[in-house]
Amino acid sequence: MQIIREISKIKSKLNELKIDGKIIGFVPTMGYLHEGHLSLIKEIKNKVDIVVVSIFVNPKQFGVNEDLSSYPRDIERDSKLAESEGADFLFYPTEEEMYPKGYQTSVILTELTSGLCGLKRPGHFKGVTTVVLKLFNIIKPDYAIFGLKDAQQVRVIEKMVEDLNLDIKVLRSEIVREKDGLAKSSRNKYLTEEERKNSLILRKSLLYAKKLIEEKEEFDMIIKKVNRYIEASCGSIKIDYFEIVNFKTLIKAEKKDSEILLALAVYIGHTRLIDNLLLNK
Amino acid sequence: MQIIREISKIKSKLNELKIDGKIIGFVPTMGYLHEGHLSLIKEIKNKVDIVVVSIFVNPKQFGVNEDLSSYPRDIERDSKLAESEGADFLFYPTEEEMYPKGYQTSVILTELTSGLCGLKRPGHFKGVTTVVLKLFNIIKPDYAIFGLKDAQQVRVIEKMVEDLNLDIKVLRSEIVREKDGLAKSSRNKYLTEEERKNSLILRKSLLYAKKLIEEKEEFDMIIKKVNRYIEASCGSIKIDYFEIVNFKTLIKAEKKDSEILLALAVYIGHTRLIDNLLLNK
Repeated sequence: MQIIREISKIKSKLNELKIDGKIIGFVPTMGYLHEGHLSLIKEIKNKVDIVVVSIFVNPKQFGVNEDLSSYPRDIERDSKLAESEGADFLFYPTEEEMYPKGYQTSVILTELTSGLCGLKRPGHFKGVTTVVLKLFNIIKPDYAIFGLKDAQQVRVIEKMVEDLNLDIKVLRSEIVREKDGLAKSSRNKYLTEEERKNSLILRKSLLYAKKLIEEKEEFDMIIKKVNRYIEASCGSIKIDYFEIVNFKTLIKAEKKDSEILLALAVYIGHTRLIDNLLLNK
Repeated sequence: MQIIREISKIKSKLNELKIDGKIIGFVPTMGYLHEGHLSLIKEIKNKVDIVVVSIFVNPKQFGVNEDLSSYPRDIERDSKLAESEGADFLFYPTEEEMYPKGYQTSVILTELTSGLCGLKRPGHFKGVTTVVLKLFNIIKPDYAIFGLKDAQQVRVIEKMVEDLNLDIKVLRSEIVREKDGLAKSSRNKYLTEEERKNSLILRKSLLYAKKLIEEKEEFDMIIKKVNRYIEASCGSIKIDYFEIVNFKTLIKAEKKDSEILLALAVYIGHTRLIDNLLLNK
């Protein structure tokens, strides 16, 4: 695996491979790789000739009061992990390389970013779409893969690719969980032992909501019940949002919708965690 | 010359040519071609194997009170002209093809779009950068060419290409003028005979400003003098802006700057015309 830090260098390496007819797969990450990321690498490797993993803790997608400075970083560990999963290139640019002095261009989506995390984290998706478009233009992959834990992000990227006429197939990958059900996340590292125990409420709430849907309960009532369920379970958990949305549009779901997303975000202490459940009819 | 209306079709045609190693040049236009456009086609043809001209009157770059509905259109005449200059493909999409239902993605630049026409035409450059990025992604040209009459547009596109890491060389092409000095524009068609005569004030004011610069006059004083000069020349002309800016940043120029842009926009009757003069040291 080659570790490359310069945009011009990764471009020229990949251009050569593309001329040779190689199919390129891309796994964008913010590093501190866990089994969720590794499963993305594994999954895309089955589809392509060359796997490029990027690690860039993108400052533009963090709010002013968010955890940019404390976000965990460990490039040595990450590069070993990426290599052991079979990544061919690790693109690891500096902030200056990605956003040189005078940088001023952004990509924005309207409807899909107006709710859920987009509402709670203003500017977050503008940062995400901007950096992902830049990375897409640098890597020019045939396939790119994103984990469904960030379900809204998946839809936003899919829509950006469609709207901007990019020739990239966006793959969705299932959420990878700890044995006890907590979705893998670099941010789980922030949790104290006590908080780690309490974090199981995310998965439990979603399964409870799923059960209520199967029992034909009304969505508004399910939302109330899930809120009560979380509040009752642990006083130190603050619900950021719980919503039942149509996965295509991310607006309030109707019973007839074919893909329904149960989306949950909570604060456990100072740590914000998200999880979701995607129901296909 | 092939006229193509579908995105998927022009993509597949051009992909084949790119695989054969052909170099693609791109001339985006809003149609109603005049000698300014034709000189763009001629100029880029010297650099590339295949010339693609697009015609799309992009609704997103017109303000609510602007001339979208009256903007001149003549596809038959345009296609003959483009073909006679040696264009290989005319891409002529419908609005539905470019912005299908649910479309929601935009590209924005901050500093470079905050002054001049960006200030006077809110949303204009957001429309321009969005459609140009889409067209770039569809055509995937090696070279794209833009006329310097829309000087701010040239800088905005250059900066977008740089910021978004696109592999496209943006060429600047000199302003083409009528014999009497009026810059060619599809909007000149709107002018009455009387207004057409008065329109010479644009070029004259710019040459007057240039003379004052050569005489080492202070920029603030030049701006005052040019405003007075235009007001004195004809009561029916309304100055939208006249500014002396650094062409790289589009902010107020200093004498030491190497590329200085004299940028003028006026209303002649209901018609808004722009012109400029680029001074290189």
